[in-house]
Amino acid sequence: MTNTDFNADSENAKDTGRTEAFSDGVIAIAITLLAFNLHVPTAEEAEAAGGLLRALAGNWTSYLAFFTSFMIILIIWVNHHRLFKLIRRTDHNLLIINGLLLMGITLLPFATILVADYLTRPEASSAIAVYTALSLILALMFQVFWRYAAHKRRLIGANVTDEAIRAVYRQFWIGPAGYTLALVLSLFNAYLGFGVILLLAIWFALPSRRSENVKV
Amino acid sequence: MTNTDFNADSENAKDTGRTEAFSDGVIAIAITLLAFNLHVPTAEEAEAAGGLLRALAGNWTSYLAFFTSFMIILIIWVNHHRLFKLIRRTDHNLLIINGLLLMGITLLPFATILVADYLTRPEASSAIAVYTALSLILALMFQVFWRYAAHKRRLIGANVTDEAIRAVYRQFWIGPAGYTLALVLSLFNAYLGFGVILLLAIWFALPSRRSENVKV
Amino acid sequence: MTNTDFNADSENAKDTGRTEAFSDGVIAIAITLLAFNLHVPTAEEAEAAGGLLRALAGNWTSYLAFFTSFMIILIIWVNHHRLFKLIRRTDHNLLIINGLLLMGITLLPFATILVADYLTRPEASSAIAVYTALSLILALMFQVFWRYAAHKRRLIGANVTDEAIRAVYRQFWIGPAGYTLALVLSLFNAYLGFGVILLLAIWFALPSRRSENVKV
Amino acid sequence: MTNTDFNADSENAKDTGRTEAFSDGVIAIAITLLAFNLHVPTAEEAEAAGGLLRALAGNWTSYLAFFTSFMIILIIWVNHHRLFKLIRRTDHNLLIINGLLLMGITLLPFATILVADYLTRPEASSAIAVYTALSLILALMFQVFWRYAAHKRRLIGANVTDEAIRAVYRQFWIGPAGYTLALVLSLFNAYLGFGVILLLAIWFALPSRRSENVKV
Repeated sequence: MTNTDFNADSENAKDTGRTEAFSDGVIAIAITLLAFNLHVPTAEEAEAAGGLLRALAGNWTSYLAFFTSFMIILIIWVNHHRLFKLIRRTDHNLLIINGLLLMGITLLPFATILVADYLTRPEASSAIAVYTALSLILALMFQVFWRYAAHKRRLIGANVTDEAIRAVYRQFWIGPAGYTLALVLSLFNAYLGFGVILLLAIWFALPSRRSENVKV
Repeated sequence: MTNTDFNADSENAKDTGRTEAFSDGVIAIAITLLAFNLHVPTAEEAEAAGGLLRALAGNWTSYLAFFTSFMIILIIWVNHHRLFKLIRRTDHNLLIINGLLLMGITLLPFATILVADYLTRPEASSAIAVYTALSLILALMFQVFWRYAAHKRRLIGANVTDEAIRAVYRQFWIGPAGYTLALVLSLFNAYLGFGVILLLAIWFALPSRRSENVKV
Repeated sequence: MTNTDFNADSENAKDTGRTEAFSDGVIAIAITLLAFNLHVPTAEEAEAAGGLLRALAGNWTSYLAFFTSFMIILIIWVNHHRLFKLIRRTDHNLLIINGLLLMGITLLPFATILVADYLTRPEASSAIAVYTALSLILALMFQVFWRYAAHKRRLIGANVTDEAIRAVYRQFWIGPAGYTLALVLSLFNAYLGFGVILLLAIWFALPSRRSENVKV
Repeated sequence: MTNTDFNADSENAKDTGRTEAFSDGVIAIAITLLAFNLHVPTAEEAEAAGGLLRALAGNWTSYLAFFTSFMIILIIWVNHHRLFKLIRRTDHNLLIINGLLLMGITLLPFATILVADYLTRPEASSAIAVYTALSLILALMFQVFWRYAAHKRRLIGANVTDEAIRAVYRQFWIGPAGYTLALVLSLFNAYLGFGVILLLAIWFALPSRRSENVKV
């Protein structure tokens, strides 16, 4: 390894580091703002509901939407984190793809309020369709991200095996498939569609088994 | 040490680093948003209260709740920071446990507004019970976090002594015990319950003595 | 290289690192807050618009302003990132110039709401003039930043070629020129002015060709 | 240098790093939230003021307060950054002192709204007294921070000269002195008090001369 190679490598390391730090910042803010949208009942609302605890319980759709979105963003962060462990350097295009991915993430708190506000209303179906569509777009963005980065091992680290690259491809079809199912179901029954998304988020968070072996 | 070992180590270092950075981001946002919920009196409110300073002073429950939550989140960060000095690497399960811990932290600003709004109202007891329950859950999450990480030294650094691991276990019973006491007391007297939490937060922040020796 | 040189170097590295981390934090928050300003229609608004999806579609100016500002801040981050790859150390003056640049970035969400709220109103021209003026100031701040840093290679890394420095100078005239054009056009036709800004943001995000070669 | 020393050193480096990252996060959020409090005039307000630009200009107290607070937080960050270049490690007490310093910083956006809302009202004096008192407390917290860290070189890096330590002590009396003057003046004339704070912030931001030599 020549001096020049070393410089190039250390420069690349710094490059990925700052992209990860920026992404971490955006994801951390988006995930924290979810709770910021939770409404504290006013004294009047508490009285009308027959007590503060009942008024709080009456906002259950907010908590459910909060929990679902928190888990989704957490899973997104875990996936983002894993991808960048396989990526050695970034280029202009990856920064833009990553930026569009982050754009979708920053829209999740908005979609979360939409679901929280409309889950028990006649318009629930529309709200959940928007939420599901955004989740689907995010899942597809991860596909685009990985296809760009892994194409001919463009931005992949030298010590990453081909099997590890293929494992990511395989794993990244679960999200799009699940969200497409949820989107179709939500057109018939809003609760069914949202239920699939919630189950998907919990399933992704469960202790890993096989995926641990491939070290994605 | 072979080349492969070195690579593995440096990869693990990066892993912990990004988890810490993401957690720092979430904790930093949650702690900063506390002050964002403080209300600036309107000109009408100032006049009604007989002056701006009196109107400000009238919001003392907000400042008390702000101070208490700021100290709690600060202590949480210090503890989180100490734990990660003992942890060498993360795995999928720890990322999820850490994520659930962060979920609880992002809910603290919400619980803080609840206490600030209801501390001088008849419903104070309910508000403080919710706040205390959340604090208790957070303290228990730290237990779960450490039990998972330290079990058979799963994720612990090689240079960490068994005594240091045990010291964390011992220290991590103070929080759950204190918050359980506060929760029980808050059912009888809201102020007593909140007083215990406030004292606990100040006590944790006081200059350390023995704990410094065990370097937790 | 003497020991002293090494110390100085490592100190400088740390210096740039924290300035980048702080800047990343500010930019990440500003870009995430953009989505926080999107309005979820109330049940009344949804009914008045003839359905939730129509009410959402009615807020298209918000989405357009959001998208434009997100792309602009993303491009700013990419540029900021590239500049700091060429910069070896910071000094007091660069920290202040960088701070003023960040001040402009934190004002972009404000200007974005302005455009979103007034794009279809008679005052559109004023709103877009403010937005364009801010963008122009930001582009000029990058000029100031680079002129200060690159003057006699004051803060530039030793391995950076003179051609790379000149390439930044050349590239950094596109923004000011484009935003000046947009500002002039916005005085005649608000949509034309905003269209130029939107196209500029998309153009900057497009896959790079020549700029990749000079590795700016 | 033995292996043990090396481990200790690298551990300490990591320690400071995370404290700096957490502080950067809090400061970055506080400085970005300043702009979030700027009010976009409604269509009604714009009409009442005789045009959007006039309505914007009518909020000049908000912009002045925003600018002043942005410069103050920027200077705080620069100072924080400089101190940590001299500090080698942290301990429990420094983390708490640093936390209390951050608490003061997160309160600045609140005090900024106070000044923006009351600068042209009869209560201006009270608003500016609160703002100035907070700035004074922050300046004194820096004194406490440095006294604790530099006492018997407790937490200071080995390569830091005694002269550099003394230079920080000297420099850190300017803030408390200036803010005390502003506080006293604000009791007689609100504008005079705020003017001193604004001038102080600009003065700190000006190109450094002598301070550059002592490399604080």
